[in-house]
Amino acid sequence: MASPRPLQSLLIDTASGRPVYQQIAVQIQSAIGRREVESGDRLPAIRTLATQLGLHRDTVALAYESLANEGWVEARVGAGTFVSLSRGGGAVGEAIDRIAGAAAEAGGEIGTEMTLSTQVEQLIALDNMRPRYATGTDVVALHRLIPDPRFYPVEEFRECIDQAIREEGPELFSYASPEGDPRLRRAMAARFHSHGIDRSADELVLCHGASQGISLALRLFTEPGDQVAVEVPTYTNVLSALTGLGLSPAPVPMDGDGADPDALDRVLSKPEVKAFYTIPSFHNPLGTTMPIERRRQVLDVAKRHGVPVIEDAFELDLRFRGEDSPPLAALDDSDNVVLLFSFSKSLFPGVRVGSLSAHGRALEGLIALKHATDLSDALPLQAGLARFVESGAYDRHLARIRRLLRSRHRVMDEALGSSMPEGTIWTKPDGGYQLWAELPFEVDTRDLLADAARAGVLFSPGASFMSDARPSRGMRLTVACADEEEIRRGVAALGEVVRSSRAARSGAGRTAGIHL
Amino acid sequence: MASPRPLQSLLIDTASGRPVYQQIAVQIQSAIGRREVESGDRLPAIRTLATQLGLHRDTVALAYESLANEGWVEARVGAGTFVSLSRGGGAVGEAIDRIAGAAAEAGGEIGTEMTLSTQVEQLIALDNMRPRYATGTDVVALHRLIPDPRFYPVEEFRECIDQAIREEGPELFSYASPEGDPRLRRAMAARFHSHGIDRSADELVLCHGASQGISLALRLFTEPGDQVAVEVPTYTNVLSALTGLGLSPAPVPMDGDGADPDALDRVLSKPEVKAFYTIPSFHNPLGTTMPIERRRQVLDVAKRHGVPVIEDAFELDLRFRGEDSPPLAALDDSDNVVLLFSFSKSLFPGVRVGSLSAHGRALEGLIALKHATDLSDALPLQAGLARFVESGAYDRHLARIRRLLRSRHRVMDEALGSSMPEGTIWTKPDGGYQLWAELPFEVDTRDLLADAARAGVLFSPGASFMSDARPSRGMRLTVACADEEEIRRGVAALGEVVRSSRAARSGAGRTAGIHL
Repeated sequence: MASPRPLQSLLIDTASGRPVYQQIAVQIQSAIGRREVESGDRLPAIRTLATQLGLHRDTVALAYESLANEGWVEARVGAGTFVSLSRGGGAVGEAIDRIAGAAAEAGGEIGTEMTLSTQVEQLIALDNMRPRYATGTDVVALHRLIPDPRFYPVEEFRECIDQAIREEGPELFSYASPEGDPRLRRAMAARFHSHGIDRSADELVLCHGASQGISLALRLFTEPGDQVAVEVPTYTNVLSALTGLGLSPAPVPMDGDGADPDALDRVLSKPEVKAFYTIPSFHNPLGTTMPIERRRQVLDVAKRHGVPVIEDAFELDLRFRGEDSPPLAALDDSDNVVLLFSFSKSLFPGVRVGSLSAHGRALEGLIALKHATDLSDALPLQAGLARFVESGAYDRHLARIRRLLRSRHRVMDEALGSSMPEGTIWTKPDGGYQLWAELPFEVDTRDLLADAARAGVLFSPGASFMSDARPSRGMRLTVACADEEEIRRGVAALGEVVRSSRAARSGAGRTAGIHL
Repeated sequence: MASPRPLQSLLIDTASGRPVYQQIAVQIQSAIGRREVESGDRLPAIRTLATQLGLHRDTVALAYESLANEGWVEARVGAGTFVSLSRGGGAVGEAIDRIAGAAAEAGGEIGTEMTLSTQVEQLIALDNMRPRYATGTDVVALHRLIPDPRFYPVEEFRECIDQAIREEGPELFSYASPEGDPRLRRAMAARFHSHGIDRSADELVLCHGASQGISLALRLFTEPGDQVAVEVPTYTNVLSALTGLGLSPAPVPMDGDGADPDALDRVLSKPEVKAFYTIPSFHNPLGTTMPIERRRQVLDVAKRHGVPVIEDAFELDLRFRGEDSPPLAALDDSDNVVLLFSFSKSLFPGVRVGSLSAHGRALEGLIALKHATDLSDALPLQAGLARFVESGAYDRHLARIRRLLRSRHRVMDEALGSSMPEGTIWTKPDGGYQLWAELPFEVDTRDLLADAARAGVLFSPGASFMSDARPSRGMRLTVACADEEEIRRGVAALGEVVRSSRAARSGAGRTAGIHL
C-alpha cells in the first residue's frame, strides 16, 4: 500500500464564517487541483489528520465524506481514502482542471484566464462561502425554503399549459411584451386588489421569479457604489444581488415589530442610500409581521427622505391565521413603493413567475429595464398560470397549503418547546414557511451545522442573513419540506446537538446574534 | 362644433433620429398629458398643422393615425380629430395619467416621483427613441427578425413539454441549478461538438434567451464606466444592454470580411475596453460571414491584448448554403471566448432558451452571475426542448427553415435587383434572416420610414445599428416574416419610395453610412 501523501499547509481559520469541515474539504480540493496530491494518492488517515489539526475526528470524517460525495476522493474499505482515479476525463477531471485554473489565478500566476469584473469575483467568493448542505435522504431539511414537492399540483398545471398552447398557438412562442402575458396580469391585479393594492394590470411587470424582480428593482434606483437599506437579518439572496450589482447594504436593526423607525431614519438620511428593501409580512428569516402602525411609520420615514421602498411580498398569499395586514403598497399614498410578488412559494418555483409593480416613471423604468435585460419572459408558462389562477385551482391549492402550514407550524412550535434548552426563544409566524429561533447561550450557529448534519437535521445559521456575516446565535427553521413526523424528529435531533454544544462550552454568555 | 384647440410649441427636430410623424405624435400625447388639450377638444386640421409646421400633409396624417391607433384621439368623419373621451378610466386614462406624471417630471417640477438611476433614465430615453412601426396587416414586415410564426412546430413542441412534465413530475417545478436542465445541456454540447466547439455539458450555462446571455456576458468582464468593443453596425439590443449596465460602446469599423483587425487592435489597446462583442457568422445587421483567416486575426488581436471575446452565434444553426465556418470558440486555443447561442431564431423566441459557454474561472463567474440574477430558468420548457432536440424534431425543423431561407433570400436578391435604383448594393448571406442594403445617394434611411410605412413596407433604418445613432444610408431587410410574394411586393414598394425620395433630393452624394 502506498504511504499516505502528507497534505501541505492545511489551515483552519476559526474567524472565517465557514464550517471547519468545509474549510478542510476546499483546501484538499485545491491541493488536488494544484497536483500536490495526485490521483491514486492516499490521504492521511482521519485520526492522523484530526490529531495534526487539533480537531475532532468527526470533523475530518465529514470533510472526507463531502469530498467523496462530490467524487474527489474514494474511500476503500480497510485501505483508507484515495484521490479519485477518474481524472483523465469526465466531470471530476474537468472539475479538477477548473480548480487548477482557479488555484493558478488565486496564486497570482500569470495564466491565460480572463480577467473578471470585481463584482463577479466577489460573487464567486460569496458563492463559495454559502453553506453546502449534505443531502442524504434521511436528513430532515429544516433549512429549505422551497415548497414541498409532494404537494405540487403538477397534473392540473400540466393541463393548463397544454390548454394554453392549444388555444393560443404560435403567438405563445413569439416574443412577449416586456410586461408579460396580459391575461395573467389581469388575474393578478384582481387578486392584488383584494389585498387593497390599487395597481392595474398595466402597472404590473412580470418577471422571472422574485429573484429577478429584486435585481430589477435594485437597478431601478441605484448605481454601483450606492447603498441600499436592508433589515438585519434579511434574505440572503438580496445580499448577493447587492454584491453582484456593486452595491452595499446599509443595515437597519429590527425589533419584534420589524425595522426600527429611528434607525431607519438615520440610515435613510445618508445620501448614498438609494432605496429601502423590506419584507413586512412573514419576514425572511424572522417569520414576523410588521404591525400596521409600524408600517405607517416606516412609510413616513421613507417618504420624508424621498427614498423609495422595495416591498418584498413573496409570501403574500400564505397567511394561515389572523387578520390580513395591508401591504405597504396598499397604505402608501405617495407612489413610493415598488411591490414584489412571486408564485415561487405559494405554488412552485419552477413556474418562474414573479411580478413588480409601480406607478408612473418607475413603471416605465421597470419596463425598459426588463426589456434591456432579457426582452421578455416565456409566455407558455405565464399563459398556463393565467388559466390555473382563473379556474380557481390556485385558490384551492392555497387553501390546502395554508392548512398544511398551520398544522406544521403548530407541530414545530410544540417540538421546539419540548426539545430545545430552556431560554431558547422563537417566533410564531402567522404565515409563510420560516421561523427564527435563538439559543440562550453564546454560540455561532454556523459551528453547530456539521454536528447537526451528522445528527440528521439541517438548518440555516443566522449569520447567513446578516449583512456583515457576523456570528449569530439565531437559526432559521422552515416547515417547507419536512412533514410533521420529520419536524418532530429533526427538532429533537437539533435539541440534542444544541445541548451537547452548550455542555461543551462555558454556559450562557453575552448575545452573539441579534435581539428580537 | 368647438373650434380647434391650438397646439402650443410643437417642435420638429430634424437632427433627432426620430421620424417626424413620431415627433409630432409624442408631443401631442404630452400635451394631452399636461391637460393643455383636454378630452373632447378638437385637434387642428391636418392641412392647417402641416402648413404651420412646413410639413407634408401625409406626415401629419400619419401622426394622427398613430395617435388614433393607440386610442389617444378619435377621427370623426367630416368633423375632424378629437382627443378621446375615454379618459376617466381604462387604459387610455391611465396612460394619460402616466404621461402627465412623466411630463411633470420632465418639466422639472418637484413631484413625488421616485428618483431613478441615470442608467434607467437613459434606457427610458433609448426606448422612446426606438422606431415604433405601424403594424397594419397588409404591411410587409421586412424589419422583423423573428422567425415566421406560420412555421412554428407548436404541436410537436406541445407534446414534448407534456411528455417532460408527465415523466419528470414535481422535480421539474422546483428550482433548477443555475446552469439549467442537464439533459438539454448534454444535447446542446453534442451539437456544438459537431461545429468543432469543444465544450462539455458542464461548461454550458442556459439562460433566458441570448438577450439575457448578452447581459450576463457583459457583466462578467465589465464594471460601469468601462467600454466594450462592438462592430459598427451591430445588434441594436447590445447597445441598449450596454446603456443599461452603465457601459459605453467602443466602435470597431467593419469591412466586407468583418471587424477590421487594425482598428480592433487600436480599440483593444485602450485599457478601459474590457471585452469585444462580435457576430462572426450571419452578422446582424449585415448578414455577412467572417472568413476563417479573419477569424484567426481577430482572435490573435484579442489574445494579444488580453481582452476576452464574446461571440454571438445566435444563428449558428441557420446556414443554408456553403461550408460551415468554424466558430471563434472552435478556433480559440487560449480559453478567451465566451460563446453565446440561442434557440430564438432557429426554433422560436418563446422557448426563452439560450446558452453561454466558457471555461474555467469565467464559467464559475457565469454560474454565480446567473444565480445572483434570477436563481435559475424554467425547467419545463428546457426539459421539453431537450426531448424536442433528442427526437430529431429540431433537425427536421431546421431542414425546413433552411430551405425556406434559401428560397426567400433568392427571391429577395432578385427583387432588389429588379426594384432598387442602380448603384444600390446589398449583401448575399449564406445563413440567417437578415441582409443589408445601401442606397446609392446621400440619405438618412430613417427619413424614408414614414413613406415606406405608408407604401406598405417596413425596414430597419441603418442608424438603429450605429453605436452613435449616426445617419446611415443602409437598411436592414429580413426574410423572416415575409413570404415570397410579400418580399416581391414589399421590395417593389420600397423601390418606389427610394426613387421618389431620390428624385426629391439632389441626387447621388457622399456616403452617409458605412462602407461595406
